[in-house]
This record gives sequence, C-alpha cells and structure tokens, in this order.
Amino acid sequence: MAEKKWVYLFREGNASMRDLLGGKGAGVAEMTNAGVPVPPGFTITTEACNAFYTSGERFPDGMWEQAMAGLKDIEAQTGRTFGDPANPLLVSVRSGAKFSMPGMMDTVLNLGLNQQTLAGLAKQTNNPRFAQDAYRRFIQLFGKIVLGVEGDKFEHMMDEAKGHGQRQDTDLSEQELAQIAEQFKQIIRDEKGIEFPEDPMEQLRQAIGAVFMSWNGKRARDYRRVNKIPDSLGTAVNVQAMVFGNMGDDSATGVAFTRNPSTGESVMFGEYLVNAQGEDVVAGVRTPQDISELAKSMPEVYNQFVEITSKLERHYRDVQDTEFTIERGKLWMLQTRTGKRTGPAAVKIAVDMVQEGIIDKATAVQRVEPAALDQMLHPMIDPKEKAKTSVLTRGLPASPGAARGKAVFHPDEAEQMAQKGEKVILVRVETAPDDFHGMVAAQAILTARGGMTSHAAVVARGMGKPCVAGAGDLKVNYKEDVVVVGNTTIRKGDWITLDGSTGEVFVGQLPTIEPEVAGDFGTFMEWVDEFRAMGVRTNADTPHDARVAREFGAEGIGLCRTEHMFFEGDRIDAVREMILAENEEGRRKALAKIEPLQQEDFEGIFRAMDGLPVTIRTLDPPLHEFLPHDDAGVREVAGKLGFEATKVKERVEALHEFNPMLGFRGCRLGIMYPEITEMQARAIFKAAAKVKKEGVKVHPEVMIPLINGREELKLQEEVVRRVADEVQRDEGVQIDYLVGTMIELPRAALTADKVAEVAEFFSFGTNDLTQTCMGLSRDDSGRFLPSYVEKKILADDPFQSLDQEGVGQLVKMGIDLGRRVRPDLKVGICGEHGGDPASVEFFFRAGMNYVSCSPFRVPIARLAAAQASLARYKKPGAGTSARDK
Amino acid sequence: MAEKKWVYLFREGNASMRDLLGGKGAGVAEMTNAGVPVPPGFTITTEACNAFYTSGERFPDGMWEQAMAGLKDIEAQTGRTFGDPANPLLVSVRSGAKFSMPGMMDTVLNLGLNQQTLAGLAKQTNNPRFAQDAYRRFIQLFGKIVLGVEGDKFEHMMDEAKGHGQRQDTDLSEQELAQIAEQFKQIIRDEKGIEFPEDPMEQLRQAIGAVFMSWNGKRARDYRRVNKIPDSLGTAVNVQAMVFGNMGDDSATGVAFTRNPSTGESVMFGEYLVNAQGEDVVAGVRTPQDISELAKSMPEVYNQFVEITSKLERHYRDVQDTEFTIERGKLWMLQTRTGKRTGPAAVKIAVDMVQEGIIDKATAVQRVEPAALDQMLHPMIDPKEKAKTSVLTRGLPASPGAARGKAVFHPDEAEQMAQKGEKVILVRVETAPDDFHGMVAAQAILTARGGMTSHAAVVARGMGKPCVAGAGDLKVNYKEDVVVVGNTTIRKGDWITLDGSTGEVFVGQLPTIEPEVAGDFGTFMEWVDEFRAMGVRTNADTPHDARVAREFGAEGIGLCRTEHMFFEGDRIDAVREMILAENEEGRRKALAKIEPLQQEDFEGIFRAMDGLPVTIRTLDPPLHEFLPHDDAGVREVAGKLGFEATKVKERVEALHEFNPMLGFRGCRLGIMYPEITEMQARAIFKAAAKVKKEGVKVHPEVMIPLINGREELKLQEEVVRRVADEVQRDEGVQIDYLVGTMIELPRAALTADKVAEVAEFFSFGTNDLTQTCMGLSRDDSGRFLPSYVEKKILADDPFQSLDQEGVGQLVKMGIDLGRRVRPDLKVGICGEHGGDPASVEFFFRAGMNYVSCSPFRVPIARLAAAQASLARYKKPGAGTSARDK
Repeated sequence: MAEKKWVYLFREGNASMRDLLGGKGAGVAEMTNAGVPVPPGFTITTEACNAFYTSGERFPDGMWEQAMAGLKDIEAQTGRTFGDPANPLLVSVRSGAKFSMPGMMDTVLNLGLNQQTLAGLAKQTNNPRFAQDAYRRFIQLFGKIVLGVEGDKFEHMMDEAKGHGQRQDTDLSEQELAQIAEQFKQIIRDEKGIEFPEDPMEQLRQAIGAVFMSWNGKRARDYRRVNKIPDSLGTAVNVQAMVFGNMGDDSATGVAFTRNPSTGESVMFGEYLVNAQGEDVVAGVRTPQDISELAKSMPEVYNQFVEITSKLERHYRDVQDTEFTIERGKLWMLQTRTGKRTGPAAVKIAVDMVQEGIIDKATAVQRVEPAALDQMLHPMIDPKEKAKTSVLTRGLPASPGAARGKAVFHPDEAEQMAQKGEKVILVRVETAPDDFHGMVAAQAILTARGGMTSHAAVVARGMGKPCVAGAGDLKVNYKEDVVVVGNTTIRKGDWITLDGSTGEVFVGQLPTIEPEVAGDFGTFMEWVDEFRAMGVRTNADTPHDARVAREFGAEGIGLCRTEHMFFEGDRIDAVREMILAENEEGRRKALAKIEPLQQEDFEGIFRAMDGLPVTIRTLDPPLHEFLPHDDAGVREVAGKLGFEATKVKERVEALHEFNPMLGFRGCRLGIMYPEITEMQARAIFKAAAKVKKEGVKVHPEVMIPLINGREELKLQEEVVRRVADEVQRDEGVQIDYLVGTMIELPRAALTADKVAEVAEFFSFGTNDLTQTCMGLSRDDSGRFLPSYVEKKILADDPFQSLDQEGVGQLVKMGIDLGRRVRPDLKVGICGEHGGDPASVEFFFRAGMNYVSCSPFRVPIARLAAAQASLARYKKPGAGTSARDK
Repeated sequence: MAEKKWVYLFREGNASMRDLLGGKGAGVAEMTNAGVPVPPGFTITTEACNAFYTSGERFPDGMWEQAMAGLKDIEAQTGRTFGDPANPLLVSVRSGAKFSMPGMMDTVLNLGLNQQTLAGLAKQTNNPRFAQDAYRRFIQLFGKIVLGVEGDKFEHMMDEAKGHGQRQDTDLSEQELAQIAEQFKQIIRDEKGIEFPEDPMEQLRQAIGAVFMSWNGKRARDYRRVNKIPDSLGTAVNVQAMVFGNMGDDSATGVAFTRNPSTGESVMFGEYLVNAQGEDVVAGVRTPQDISELAKSMPEVYNQFVEITSKLERHYRDVQDTEFTIERGKLWMLQTRTGKRTGPAAVKIAVDMVQEGIIDKATAVQRVEPAALDQMLHPMIDPKEKAKTSVLTRGLPASPGAARGKAVFHPDEAEQMAQKGEKVILVRVETAPDDFHGMVAAQAILTARGGMTSHAAVVARGMGKPCVAGAGDLKVNYKEDVVVVGNTTIRKGDWITLDGSTGEVFVGQLPTIEPEVAGDFGTFMEWVDEFRAMGVRTNADTPHDARVAREFGAEGIGLCRTEHMFFEGDRIDAVREMILAENEEGRRKALAKIEPLQQEDFEGIFRAMDGLPVTIRTLDPPLHEFLPHDDAGVREVAGKLGFEATKVKERVEALHEFNPMLGFRGCRLGIMYPEITEMQARAIFKAAAKVKKEGVKVHPEVMIPLINGREELKLQEEVVRRVADEVQRDEGVQIDYLVGTMIELPRAALTADKVAEVAEFFSFGTNDLTQTCMGLSRDDSGRFLPSYVEKKILADDPFQSLDQEGVGQLVKMGIDLGRRVRPDLKVGICGEHGGDPASVEFFFRAGMNYVSCSPFRVPIARLAAAQASLARYKKPGAGTSARDK
C-alpha cells in the first residue's frame, strides 16, 4: 500500500484543494501553478492535523519524512540549505485552515536562524545589524507563539533596553541586539525551563506541532463554536522560503490593488518602499511611494508586476489585493487575495468585468454586497468639509442619508416653519405617533432615546429620511426650546447637520452631495432582476412613497399602514371623537367623517401603483396613541371636540396600558368595534371602484393584523367580504381582491394551518414576531441588546437581522402549515427584515413569494433576492467572489 | 339478508349502547331492563338519522315499518291504541344524541291528540279542561318545534286571550282553550300554508323527521364545532307512552335525589306535588311537599320508590337525580341521571360509597371535580347572614375565601394598623409590588382595576388571601382616604366584608365560617395520592407559606420568588441603593447588605421543606418596580439614601419602559449585573450549608428566569456553579443542587434542545409563555378578553386554563426537544396553570414530572394529577361519573 500523502509541494496543489491544503495553501499553490513567481514551499495537509490528534498528538507516520523531502525541494529551488551556516535557507511557518480563523497560530518568520546561520544571513543581506535584529525577533516570536511564553516578558525587556521610551527600536546597535537575544533565551529558560532550540530541524518540528496544537486552543474553539465551523476540519501548515525586500536599493516591498477600490476605476492602485520589509510599510516610518513610481525606478520589474497581477485578476476573475517583495531585482509574489471595495466601486467593477468578458452576469450579481448599495441611495456629507468639522455628538445610525436644517423641538413648529419654506430638523427625546406631522415636515429626525427600531427610526426609514436616534448625550429641554450637549447649547432655529448613515451630529450647515445613480447602477439592477425569483414590494403609506418605491423597482405594496393617515390634518379630531364616543352610534358618526378622507388616500395609492397589488392593513396601534397624554393636551382636545376635560382624561386613563405592545390593538380593535373595520373596508373598496372606472388596474389585498388564530380572522374577514359585496353591487364593478392576515404572534404561526383555511395570503410581521417570540421590546432593549451582541449571546441584533434559529422556526412552521392547507397560499414579509440581505435569503429559502421593505431598501432587497436565487439554483462563477470573504 | 334494525324497544337496549341509541335512549333502556317501571317506548337509532341524510332526507327503508311495530308494542303494554278516539295512546317524542346538546329539538308531548282523541283523553283524565289545555299546548309545541312557526305568534295570541295580563293561563275556560286551539291552527295555516296534521300517524312521522332535521340546525352545528363533537354521530329519536300525574289525588309527580346533594348525607332528598304535572312543579304555583311526606300519604308507593331508586343508585353506582310520576297509584320512573352536588357533598358521597362497597377507590377519586375542593379550603360568609345583606358592589372573584376588616387605602397604614392588632382590608385602584407589605398586613385585598391575573390577584392567591379585583364601580380617592360606590361612601376605618369566591363586597362585618377539613376529606386525599403519578409542588416565598403548602401535601417548592423578599422591611433601601449605584463596586456594596438577609430567608424555607426540593428563581422583575414613581417618593428615597433627588429621578426615568413585560428583567439583569446572581447564589448555598450542618436535608434547585436560549443560561450557570464551588469548599460540605431554567419565552421552547445541554431542569412559566405566545398582556387584556371568551374566539381565559392548541404546542415542543438531548430532564410548571385541573391533565399527558401552584391549590392539583393518571392508565369504574356530565 502506498504511503499516505501528508505533504504537497506548492506546485502539486491548486485552488480547489482548500479542504486538504487550507485557504492559504490552496492559494499559493494556485499562484505557483499559474506561473507566478512565489517563494517555493510546501503544505502539510489538514488530514495530517487530524491524524496528529487521533494518534495522541504525534506526527503521523511518514509526515516528517515527507516534510524533509519538501524542504529538500525548497533548498534545490533556492540554492540555499536549511541550517547551512554559510548560505542558510530561512523559512516562514504559518497555519492555514479552510476558513480564516482568529485564535489560530499566526506566522513564525526567519525560522532556521541560530548563532551559526546568523552569520550567513548577515552575509546574504550584507547587513549584520539586520541579521541580528531578525534573530532577536525570531526568538521573541518563537518564544511567544511556539513555546507559549507571555509576550509581555519580552516587551518589558525590550523596553528596559531602550531606556523606557528614551530610544526607538532602530536606535539599538547590533551589539545591543545580540545581548537582547541572549536575554530572551534566558527568559525562555526561566519561564519554561527549557533551552531555546538552536537546531533548525527542532525549530521546524516544534513550529509545526504548535500550529497543530493551536487548532484546539480555547480562542480557536470558541470562534468555531460561535461561527459553527466543525472541529473536524483541522488546519494545514505552510512552510515557505523567506525572501527579503531590504537587501539594498534593488530591493523593495509593497502592496497593490489591480483596480481602484474606492471608485472601481481600472487602474493599478498601491504603494511600495525601497529597501524595506513588509513591517516597515505597516509601521509608517517612511512614506511609501505610489505604485506608478515603480514604473520609473524599476520599469522591467513593474511591467512584470503588471503582467502578473493582470493575469491573477483574470485568473481569479476579481480585483486582487496583492503583496510583493523585490529581492535584488527579482519580483516575488507573497500573497494575492480578493480586494475589498466600496459599494460604488463594487458595482462599477462588476459591470466593467462583465463588459471585459472576465465574468458573467450571474457572477457580477453575486459580487456586490446588497448592503453596499445603501451608500448609493442617500445624500452624504461632503467628505472634505466633514473632515474639517468636529462631531458634536453621536447616536445610532437609524436611517441613512445626510441632511441639514434648523433645530426645532415641537412637531407643530416643525410643520409651521416648513410651511414657510424653512428646512428644519426635528429634535425630540423620543417620538410618538402624535409627532408624525412634524416628522413629515422635517428634513431629518434626531432623538435622545430609542434604538434602531424605535418609532423615530422605523418611521424615518419608512419615509427615507435621515435619522439619528438614541443620541444619549442630548439633554432636550422642551420648555426652553434648547438642547444641551456637554458645553454646547443649541437653540431653536440654530442650524445643525446630521448623518444618518454614521450617527454623527454636527453644529452648523455642512454641504451635502446628492447620490448619483450612475449608468452602471441601472445596468447592474437590470441584471439583478434577470436572476431574481422572489418578488420585492415596498412598505408605503402615501402616493409619494409609493411612486418613489416604484422607481426603485418595487412590484407592489406589501404594507400600507392606515393609521398614519389618521394623524394627518384635521382627521385626528374625528379619530379622537370616535375614541371618545360612548357607543357604536357615536363611533359610526365619527367614522363617517374619516371615511371619505381614507378613500381619497387609497385612490392616490391605487393610482400610483396602477397594475400592482396593494396590501392594506386595517387599524393596528393602540387607541391611546391617538390621544393626548398631558393635561394641556387633554384640555385642548376637550375644548375642540366639545367634551368635558374630565371625561377625556378618564378615557385617556382607561386606555392606559402597562404593556401596550401586548394590549388592545391590532384586530382586537376591529373585533370589539367592527364598525372601524367596516369603515376601512368601505373606503378601500369605494376607492378601488372609483379608480377602476378611471381605467386603473387595482388589486387591493386587505390584511388583518395581530391575529392569534383562525377565529379572529374569520370574524374580520366576514366584515370585509360583506362590505366588498355591498360596494361591488352598489358600484356595479367587480374588484379583484384578497383577504389575508399578518402572522406576527407565535400562536398565529403555530396554528397557521387553521388560519390558512380563511386567509388567502400571509404576511409575516417579523418585528412583532421577534418581540413576542423573544419577549423583547424593541423600544426597551437598548439597555442590554448591544451587550448581548458583544457577548455573542445573540449573533446579531434580532431586529436588524432575523433570528433564524428561533423566530425563523416560527416563520418556516407558519409557511409549511399554511401551505399544507392551501398550497397556493401567497406568503410575504413586511417587517423591517425585508430590507436585510441575510434575512431576505432566509425568506427565499423558506419559500416566500415576496419581501416588502422601505422604499429606499427596495434595490437592496432585489439584489439579496437575486443572490438567494443564484445560491440555490446556480453554482457561482469560478473564482472567489467578494461575498465569500 | 336480514333487514337493518333501525328501531329498538326500550327492553332491547342497554346503557352501553349510547352510540346507537343516544344517551337518553340507552338510559331508559337500562332502567327498563333493570325492572324499573318505565312507560314503554322505543328508540330510533342514530344510524337511522345518518341514513336519513345519506338518502336525501328520507327515512331509510324499513324504518317506518319498524317504528309501527314498536308502536304496537307500546299499545300492547299500555292497553291503549294510538289514534283511538275512545282510549287513545299518547306519546312523547324526543331527540337524544350521544352527548346532551343544546340547539337540538326538545320534547313534543301529548302527540297523538286531535279533535277525536281529545274526547278519549278527557275521559281518561276525567278532566275535559285539562284535555283541552293539553291539546292547545300540543298544537303550540308541534307548531313551533316541528313546523317551525315563530313561537311569538302563539304567545301573542295567548296574551290577547288573557286580556294582556289581566288573567292567568289557569283562568282560561275549556271553551276558551278550544277556541285558542282553533286560532293556533289558523296561525299555522297563515304562516306555513299548511293544515295542522290531525292524523296521529302523520304527527309522528313529522315529529321524527323534525328531530332528524334538528341535528343539522345552525345552533346544533355551531355547538358541535365549538365543542368538537363530530357531525357524523347523528341523533336518536325516543318515542314513549305518556303518563299523567294529574289524574286525581292518587296521582302525583316529583323529583328526588338519592342522597343530599348539599351535604352528601345518605338520606332521600326531594319533593313532590299531588295531582299535578311536571310543569306545575317547575312553575311553582303550589308549594311542593317534602319527599318524606310521601311515606305517610302513599306508603306503598313510597317504599317502592325507595327500593327502585336505591337499586338505581347501586346500578349506576352514583347518586341519582330522578323524576317520577304516580298515575292512579302506579309509580312510573321518567328519568334518572347522575345528581349534581357541592364539593363537600362530592367528597362525602365518594368516601361513603367506597365504604358501602358501591364503588372502588379509583372511581371515588374520579368522582370529585378538582375545582370543587376549592370550597373546602377557604372561609366563607355565613349564608344566613349573607342572605339578609345587600351587596355593595361586585368585582372579579380573584382569590377565594371571605374576610372582614377595616378599609385602608395605603399600604403603610395597613401595616401600622395591623401591627396594632387591627384587621384591615387594603383597598387600592390597583396594586404594585411596592404595596406588598400592605398586602401582607391585610386580611384581604380589594381593587378597582385589574383582572384575574392582575398583580393583586396573583399575589393574593399566592398568599392564600381573599381578593376581589377589578370592582369597576369603586371610585378610590387616595387623598381623602375614601372610596365611593354609587351613593355609599366608605371612609378609612369603616368595616367591610368581601367574598373572594364570588366577588361580592358588603358594608359592615359579616360573620364568616371557617372551613372544616373533615375526616372524609383526609381519607379522600390519601386515596388521591394512591393513584397520582405526577408530583405536586407549591409556589411559596416564605417559611409560613411553605409550611401551609406542606400541610396541604406539597412535595417541594416549585417556585420561590426572591424578589418579594426584596421589599420586606428595610432591605428595600439596600435594593434601591444597588439600583442607584454608579458602578459594579457600588452595587456590590449594596448587595453585601442584602446577602445575609436573603440567606436567613432561605434558611427558614429550607428548614420548612426539610427533605424536599426547593426551586429558587433568581431576580426577575424590572428594576423600576423597586423605585418610587412619584415626586414625593423620589424625594423621600433620595433623602433616606443620601442621593440627590434629581439623580434618583433621572434613574427612575432612565429605567422607564414602554413594555416592561418585554424589557430589562429576568436573566437579563443577571447577565448585565452578574454580581446580583452571584449574591443570590451565595445566599442560597451559604443557607444550604448552614441548615445542612443542623441536620436538615436540603436540595436547592437554582432557576434562571426568562432565558431566550442556551447562551444566557450558560453564562448564569457558570456564575452559580462557581459560587457553589466556593461555598462548598469554604464551608466544607457537599450540597446536592441543580441548576435549571424557566421556559417562558417561545424562543426558549423552540430551542429547548440547546437549552437542555446546560439545564438540569425546565420549569415552564406558562403565565409569561401565554403572554408572549399570544401577544397578550395579562394586565391589559381585561378590555377584550371576556368578549373573546363570550364570542368563542377563545375557549377559555388563557391565563386561567392553558391554551393547549397554541401555548400547549410550545410546552410539548419544549419538553420533547429537551428530553431528546437529556432524557432524564426534570420538567415542571410553575405558572398559575399549575392549579387548573384541565391544564394539570395536559401537563401530565405532556410528560411533566410535577406541577407547582399556590399553597391553597395544592389539593386541587393533587386530585387533578390523580385523575389524569387514572384517565391514562385505567378505565373508569362502571357507571357514569360526575365528571362525564
């Protein structure tokens, strides 16, 4: 039987062997075989690592011998000999698992150095001090990483040698460095009771063993647990010849991208240092030169470099971020990997590469992170001006985009000033539905309290307005119309600027740059839709929002909230009259005033969405949201509506709830007061009938919120269908409509089979479903949720990215149970998660027909949906895409 | 092939044939065969009903002929002939499904009457007016029930005949009645366009058809849907000879129980009327005589009656509630059924019958409704006094038992007065955890707001104190220390009495009767435990409660809430100091003050539960519950603790939550402030170590609340185990302890497999699980929940009886997933549902090890658990148990 192959020379491997050679090993193998000059080396396989563990932490039979053969190969290629005092071969030893993994052993450089080979290195580099310093560093690194000595011990010693900050590393002489090397060895002796291994073979043996052991270190295991990486993968070990960029002025080291990672332009982008090592570039002691200078100083090498990197880009079919070293005029490639890039660059590069024939459209669509599109959809503060201005305070980046305006503290004033044509920013401790008209009037919203899913944040995102929420340093004083931040006082009318993409707040007016929806973006989104299988709708409450969303590619409205309309203008009076009514008759009288206004709203939305479905949710929020809560407000309302103030106050108190989220809201309102649902249904169907007569294609979908099971839906559905019949008969038109429900309580998901007997569609309300499934109020969780994410108790903020393990189970259960009873059940989602790429992919896999999100997230959802389709139905194009990183 | 048998004579059936003959048919058959004198008759089977529907609403072939044969049999036995003008046989026709079902056709009496047979009846009864009245009634009943004429039409006509209230039915003469009969026939003609059928055969045919049709009436179908009775059962039809108790002074009619249904004493209990019909007894025109009188007036008949009913009781092995008629000295039994009884009677009868050898212990245990025990566990208002006193107002019967005391409106005052030895009742709009010391001091609690699961109700039940909650008519004025109800004003110090079992409130002192736990009760509970397989623990926070519960048979503590201890005495100051602390150091300082006090509490509880497990929940409620909410309270706390008032206020505001139920509480506190969990764990283990050294057997089970998944539990578990190790080492004792968690959020149930990797036990918190699963705040749902139950949207208040369809799915899922990972996982429940019999049965079926409930519900839970075991493992004893009803 042939001996098991534990070791692969770089030229024996390739990119497809990641499982066996690890990511790094497969990468250098691929480069080597592509004819790129890579310092020679070999990879010890992940299987060897596993065998190491199964055989009691010993190298498996034959492994060491194969490694020795690999070393011979390196010696042959470099003309140097490992451990040869005259012309020593030095190597680096690195771990390399399939996935890049913090907590694993990093690199040991210059392995093979000892008192004897030191002289050889001095000769090779023609720099005895460098050689001595390399030796010192090698002992330090080996001592810390391989032998497990606390790093601090070495650091303290260095610090002492430098006179505690009086001198730099570079000030140490060759002799001092030699002395330090000896002291380092003493530390190792003291700490570990062993001699530093002077034998290069022993060094190599120990380094390989240390890489294997690091696979089972605590940090590595924790990381794998959290990231669900199987323990069984094992790590590979890479042993590679060292090259030096500091052997004189014909040597250099640098980094370069094959295209500009900020703009996407197809020009080489990078920098280098002559006579330097990689760590000098990082340390920033000398200013590096632009890569274009290399063309002048070493034209031949530069041409070779351009040729190699272009080849690598074509080979990997993506922008490459490379590291190189020039050793005495010879170019060596040390690393190549996919280059990170901005959103606009990602789109431009993807489109260019398709046009250059490098990748196909499917690959292009997979190349761009959906979230990266966000940068292209909102105004931003001019970066030059921003750099000059200091930040006043920071909050949460609750709704992206930048805006400037005069600070105002009361919604009414915001409205009045806006009507005079002034730009205002509404500043509040927190917002409530009462403040809606002020939010409509403002350029942006700033709050002192509340999280990413607070009322302010949700409404602002819905409207596509910038919002900074939960800026805790703000002390808002409504009485005096000021806000104080530290020593700064901002009065009503003072200009402020805020950036909802970063959470920054500035005093004064900073210029903003409007986003350019360039031609490439349009092209890109067309390709996206070629691959997308799941629908994308929008959450929109006004004809304006509906139109914006349609321009962004929305294929219907997935959530039209009728309650926002209740706050507009005078109709809030009629709403309050309804709430204060003593009986059904009184409520009907008040509802009759609201009905024609609601009908008009729906007409506008139906016209804007001509030909597309419009899902309208019946009244959802608790009634007390429509009433004033302070005495002054109570008196005002009482006066205006002709009620006694005590009566209004009594009603406000009676409607008070300990946990309004779990209270008298959603369909519970329509069950207790069916006349509300009746009015809303009548407004919907009368509007539909009217616009249909105008020639508009109208497809209303009436959606009942917050049901707990079949019975509630049935009762509400009966009301809706009865009204629909009446209106269709009276108006003499047939309306193509559906009645469905939101699934936003665990019980509704658990009994979805029963619910589907009545519902023609489900729309998952994943905000509320997350709140109830996890017992987590989105308004109150700011006190601990960030810590939870930090401590890895939760992988993400579950209000931003769906908790697939918990809430996701309910979603899947709901869909499966529903479709069991009604195979053609239409299923969508209209929570905030509709705009989150990871969640969108989950919803696609769960079998949803569509997602619905804020207008400004529609392109993001489209892209995420397309990528989800591609992930299921196609293999991605060859090479590594940006998303694999 | 023999013809299908559609008709059974009474003597051909028996009690086991309920499926085929319906409940009523099987019952009379059983009596007939037991030799009891029953008017002869026959039953048309449920199969005939189903065949009626499958053959297009026509009688199946042969059925009518078999019915005719049955009629011949009745004629032969009675010596009368159906339709014979001289000596007519009259019959009753009744529906009789397997289960008694409202909405089904009721009884048609005197069928067979027409102008001709009327004369015969007059002769038989020797009462022409009675015969005429019987005819009038027959037409009316047949018209309404069989022909479907609106009942009002007949009523109006009667009303007119009586001069609109000037005369009674009994004032109408024979002639007037004859005239009314004719007018009734005219109504039928007008309404239905048909002649009233004079042919007795036609009457019978139509009546049978009407019974069949009523099976599919809307009300019957609705009832079956709600009660989950299959539509396929069908109904039987019973045709039986009429007998008359009004044929003179040798005739009579009456009802009697074989034992006293109030006390359970084994003496005949009932009443009768001479020369009367059943409806006369019901109408209450004449005062009936006690059944014992019959022994004097008709000794032979009485003896026969006693003999028959005793035989029936032995036959059915249960108390019988019988109806009888004596027709000219001959006794006829019309009905016998299981007699309803009070709780104390149920226990006494069950015990007596075992001792009399009538039933076995298993049957006895199944005979008593668990909820009926409640009456035996609490004081009650003397019924005689109660009858004389008018009720002031009513609220919800939130915690059973009666109490009297002086009204007080502030917890501090309640405490002060109680310390002086006065009995007080705490009257509040609603209670909060702040009020705990006042609730402890009071005899009972009365609130104006809140439902059956409001804070007041839950805490009162936990303490076993009477509570009337949500008495909406109360206008509490804290400032003036009065409560106004209508025209009555109650001032501080005025005596009131309340009955928490009925929700009634009285002015003044009403005498109460202490419950007598009679010897029978003890015997009964011993038998209960012989059959019980599931454990019963108690929720108890004090040594006193623990002792009470132990006396009631609790086998451990399933929930000991540590937060109630936080309110006692001065320790609230230390708790507030902890909450107001700026940092961990400050919190630790405050916690150090609380620790020895908590330790003492635990010592007391451990001693009380010597040998039994004690489950202690770490801190659960949101921190703001411990802080004052009004300015005066803020100033007071600030002064006392030496903080600035503005700082206290700021902290109160910062801790404010929109939805505290879903906020910063449960393990979230311990995750953010591990020092709290650490202090509590130390108090637990130090207490355990101390009492163990005293010789107490101690088994603490530390329970982490409100987890969402494995990670939270793991972090808290690590703290608990570390502290346990420390204490065990320091104290030199081994403590037998467990660490587990509450499952009270849907996500915890959905990921229970992961959770069970860490948890040694689960305790389902079904209160919170219901709130989150259904998105229903128990404090706020009073506005709509009663309507939901009324409208059958929900079968029950889900806070009182577990919602098995929704919440129950999560419970089952949680148990199954947990046991998959840890087969010996201990599982219990500590929500309010632990005292609800239907829920207890569900928990048993779901595989729980124990339920835990308030001390005063422990016997109820024990009985429910025993019945659940018997339902699974044994067939109930022969005969019908009270619970089948």
